[in-house]
Amino acid sequence: MSKLALDGVIAYPVTPFDPADGGVDTVRLAALVDRLVDAGVHAVAPLGSTGESAYLDDAEWRTAAETAVGAVAGRVPTVVGIAELTTRGAVERARFAERAGADAVMVLPLSYWRLDEREVTRHFTAVADAVGIEVMVYNNPATAGIDLSPEQLVGLVESVENITMVKESSGDLQRMHRLAQLSGGELPFYNGSNPLALPAFVAGAAGWCTAAPCLAPEPVLTLHRAVRSGELATAREVFGRLLPLLQFIVSGGLPTTVKAGLALRGTPAGTPRPPLLPLDGARSGQLAALLRELDGHPAPLAA
Amino acid sequence: MSKLALDGVIAYPVTPFDPADGGVDTVRLAALVDRLVDAGVHAVAPLGSTGESAYLDDAEWRTAAETAVGAVAGRVPTVVGIAELTTRGAVERARFAERAGADAVMVLPLSYWRLDEREVTRHFTAVADAVGIEVMVYNNPATAGIDLSPEQLVGLVESVENITMVKESSGDLQRMHRLAQLSGGELPFYNGSNPLALPAFVAGAAGWCTAAPCLAPEPVLTLHRAVRSGELATAREVFGRLLPLLQFIVSGGLPTTVKAGLALRGTPAGTPRPPLLPLDGARSGQLAALLRELDGHPAPLAA
Amino acid sequence: MSKLALDGVIAYPVTPFDPADGGVDTVRLAALVDRLVDAGVHAVAPLGSTGESAYLDDAEWRTAAETAVGAVAGRVPTVVGIAELTTRGAVERARFAERAGADAVMVLPLSYWRLDEREVTRHFTAVADAVGIEVMVYNNPATAGIDLSPEQLVGLVESVENITMVKESSGDLQRMHRLAQLSGGELPFYNGSNPLALPAFVAGAAGWCTAAPCLAPEPVLTLHRAVRSGELATAREVFGRLLPLLQFIVSGGLPTTVKAGLALRGTPAGTPRPPLLPLDGARSGQLAALLRELDGHPAPLAA
Amino acid sequence: MSKLALDGVIAYPVTPFDPADGGVDTVRLAALVDRLVDAGVHAVAPLGSTGESAYLDDAEWRTAAETAVGAVAGRVPTVVGIAELTTRGAVERARFAERAGADAVMVLPLSYWRLDEREVTRHFTAVADAVGIEVMVYNNPATAGIDLSPEQLVGLVESVENITMVKESSGDLQRMHRLAQLSGGELPFYNGSNPLALPAFVAGAAGWCTAAPCLAPEPVLTLHRAVRSGELATAREVFGRLLPLLQFIVSGGLPTTVKAGLALRGTPAGTPRPPLLPLDGARSGQLAALLRELDGHPAPLAA
Repeated sequence: MSKLALDGVIAYPVTPFDPADGGVDTVRLAALVDRLVDAGVHAVAPLGSTGESAYLDDAEWRTAAETAVGAVAGRVPTVVGIAELTTRGAVERARFAERAGADAVMVLPLSYWRLDEREVTRHFTAVADAVGIEVMVYNNPATAGIDLSPEQLVGLVESVENITMVKESSGDLQRMHRLAQLSGGELPFYNGSNPLALPAFVAGAAGWCTAAPCLAPEPVLTLHRAVRSGELATAREVFGRLLPLLQFIVSGGLPTTVKAGLALRGTPAGTPRPPLLPLDGARSGQLAALLRELDGHPAPLAA
Repeated sequence: MSKLALDGVIAYPVTPFDPADGGVDTVRLAALVDRLVDAGVHAVAPLGSTGESAYLDDAEWRTAAETAVGAVAGRVPTVVGIAELTTRGAVERARFAERAGADAVMVLPLSYWRLDEREVTRHFTAVADAVGIEVMVYNNPATAGIDLSPEQLVGLVESVENITMVKESSGDLQRMHRLAQLSGGELPFYNGSNPLALPAFVAGAAGWCTAAPCLAPEPVLTLHRAVRSGELATAREVFGRLLPLLQFIVSGGLPTTVKAGLALRGTPAGTPRPPLLPLDGARSGQLAALLRELDGHPAPLAA
Repeated sequence: MSKLALDGVIAYPVTPFDPADGGVDTVRLAALVDRLVDAGVHAVAPLGSTGESAYLDDAEWRTAAETAVGAVAGRVPTVVGIAELTTRGAVERARFAERAGADAVMVLPLSYWRLDEREVTRHFTAVADAVGIEVMVYNNPATAGIDLSPEQLVGLVESVENITMVKESSGDLQRMHRLAQLSGGELPFYNGSNPLALPAFVAGAAGWCTAAPCLAPEPVLTLHRAVRSGELATAREVFGRLLPLLQFIVSGGLPTTVKAGLALRGTPAGTPRPPLLPLDGARSGQLAALLRELDGHPAPLAA
Repeated sequence: MSKLALDGVIAYPVTPFDPADGGVDTVRLAALVDRLVDAGVHAVAPLGSTGESAYLDDAEWRTAAETAVGAVAGRVPTVVGIAELTTRGAVERARFAERAGADAVMVLPLSYWRLDEREVTRHFTAVADAVGIEVMVYNNPATAGIDLSPEQLVGLVESVENITMVKESSGDLQRMHRLAQLSGGELPFYNGSNPLALPAFVAGAAGWCTAAPCLAPEPVLTLHRAVRSGELATAREVFGRLLPLLQFIVSGGLPTTVKAGLALRGTPAGTPRPPLLPLDGARSGQLAALLRELDGHPAPLAA
């Protein structure tokens, strides 16, 4: 059972880089985390896919983890992302996150050589055994190169004490139905597919893992409140307004588009790390238009 | 614009076969259609995938179409399914359906040789031009062997006057969001993926195309009513109870499982046509258990 | 064991349609078959995918089968294609083919509802049991909507006496290696993927099922001869010259492109049946250039 | 144009780990490389996928690179593998490889966030610009998470002077035909899909990138000689004998199976790095049987 009982919006900050030397910009990272907490998000998840975790070297990763945990300062839970090719690397980063004060780690098993179920289980178990904090296991075939079934994920929760949460980012809503069914509705699972935010909540998701609050925290939080209070019409209206932005940031890549959006918002966070390239001018223009539309003029999903 | 304004549950009867000669059992088909209308469904769609339309010869197909339309007797709209490899065959069946009194035809472009966009457009347009009734265009890559994008489907609605409705059965909820967005919420679209029934309604679907009312009309209709009246908690509870049945009939093939279920319900409809085989004993037992559970003991999706 | 012992080039004629009424043009079909036999192909396979078998009604299909078998006149074996959704339909066509004098039937199990292994086995077995001639079972997931593994195909050959040959059109060369391994090199298997013609022969294919002889019989037969006599350099040179044509006719759809090519060759065969559309002007121009190049100027695969 | 003119068997050593501390076992790596060169392979490629390159930290990677280049000692060309998520990391490793004396680097662009064509081009170009040695660009969607088309690969060769070679590991033979066509047969391309070894040579591959010589160098080299001298029958016979081993090492993962095989050969190289697990007992038994069969009793592909 999860003692954290995370519920709501889990916000994913980007990792700002210094334009001069390309290193982690701790001042801007702390400021971004601070804005997210101030806006009212229910948890912060640094060093996720959005945070370019996989592209950082060890020293950078540790700096970013410490900075983010420090900026949250215990006001909400902090869930630190771990996406490592080796079990050894994942264990080391998880231990570091715990020492830095993280409340939980979210673990994505990167695949180079295809991993079988036994290898995935050993990877997750080794990380969980190495720390005392809770572990969220995470399925994201598009970035990880491996697809974990609901049965496998629920099996991990049932067999390892501090694996207590599941994140699902495959984009297949039926996986979430299955997670609810397999656990009798008891397992807290989290949706990582932005364009499924509303249906995932309807399917029983305990939370929404999203970088969207970096650019538009208010409608994200309003959507969650509307769902929790059973106001379906409001939830649909807000989701319809948000959806074009969610579709845009997903299709363009989260670090790329969110960093471009932060520049448009007047709080620049540098550019993503190569081989990722900055959003080009035409698409930055589209993003600016989407943000203006969202700020000013509602565009409901359906009449 | 659709004048039919179909909204709600569109029920798909199987086509019962006579155990003696394997031909269409018109008495049982009429009785099944009658039970569906009596139960309160909002439309009836004979000769869909569930109705084994693709496995019938011309004479059988015509008999089934006439029988079903006659049994509905104008009490609700009838939408007749057309799944033909040739444009000529599709046109002939659509014309026959219109003469028999159908209110609309639902057209699925079966693919043997891969069709390009121009060929699909010509197929749909030829059918629509051949009749005066409304046409629902239909995407179902798993059975049709061709995948039609939301852009293509909306383009057909915009360019052909009596193409007024879209059915989406790909199982990808984001296609439905896209249909709503592309049409400014104006296009009536219908969900054909049973395990997505609730999220599809939340995404704005005008209706649910489903064979489930053959076996359990009451919860299907309750789900629709709860969604339309904004009772999200009730909708989630009913959907959670229905979901195991919906998953079962989809994964086992609709004609196969629904015919097995009708036998269990005491209203046998024969077996599916070879190469389809009847549901085996073990899975019939599972289906019986699911129906008992659904009839008696609620199994909610989540607490 | 196959008594036919088919080896070499199995030519697939298109089914010419009469420009006036759209019906089967028996005169042109017979002439095309005659030209193929005269050119030296080792067998003729009417009513394959190339022959638009799936788009013909019963009467047309029978006419085409009788015409083709009659035109071959026993000079080489005739293998008639059967691609039917129902087992009943497949059995009827197979019986007709046998009565018409075919030496074998090639059976493709079209899938509308997904068939499980048991259903596929029953379908093939029912057809084989209904005739005394040999049966070639056929895997072509792109057109049939179902993918049959080498293990399943070899299992059918081992368990049903007159299922004696396998055709593989998935485009995965490793399937052919597997067919050879599973049968200890004893099973005659046939390649239906044109752009793999040479590697399939090297992998042990007994024959090449191809529509290319309709347009260019000489290099097709030369390739076969070179492989059989171990002249690898010649085989590679001829295959390199043929490959652009093979790639073109596959990517554009065989009936569409081969009918366009026959018109360019001065032996028109009408247009494919809608929803298939004739090759457009730009691509007909490309095809004309490919044929001129093939006729006149060699374009080897590699120096 | 490639000045290296690599032709033949490019052997991929595993990276042995010390059973005691898990670090790189330089003595055994040097010995393995030495055996490969002595056996007659035409080039050595340390730190490929087989070499668990992606699982090594910077210091380990440099140690392995220096050890391997030193052990080759200029007797044949050395091609060092680079599989990095960041462009910066790839550039640094490529520069190190050049300084260590490598003749070329083979670059695989690992994908976490999906890379567009522009990003892939920049990644490859940055690496090539950073070194004076030749660069082999490499497509392997299964491990890299990104699929590079023949058009894109040939485009890189045409536009960047020291990008001179392409490796294709997608398993789709038609990609190799396309590489040959696009370059008029001029581009040296290399096959990385073991079970396609013979057909790839027939398609014009300049070489075969393979870990199989770690376990069975003789038949691998015999296959190459037979192809180059046009002895098709011998090539087919040897390939048929090798194929079960090639299929086994690919399906079980190269580092996992090759390390198990090296232990069976009496030249242990430790176990793969977690999350990879050693081959289990049952499959080690299968591998032992395959090696015995290959050593003693020929099992031809076809009679």
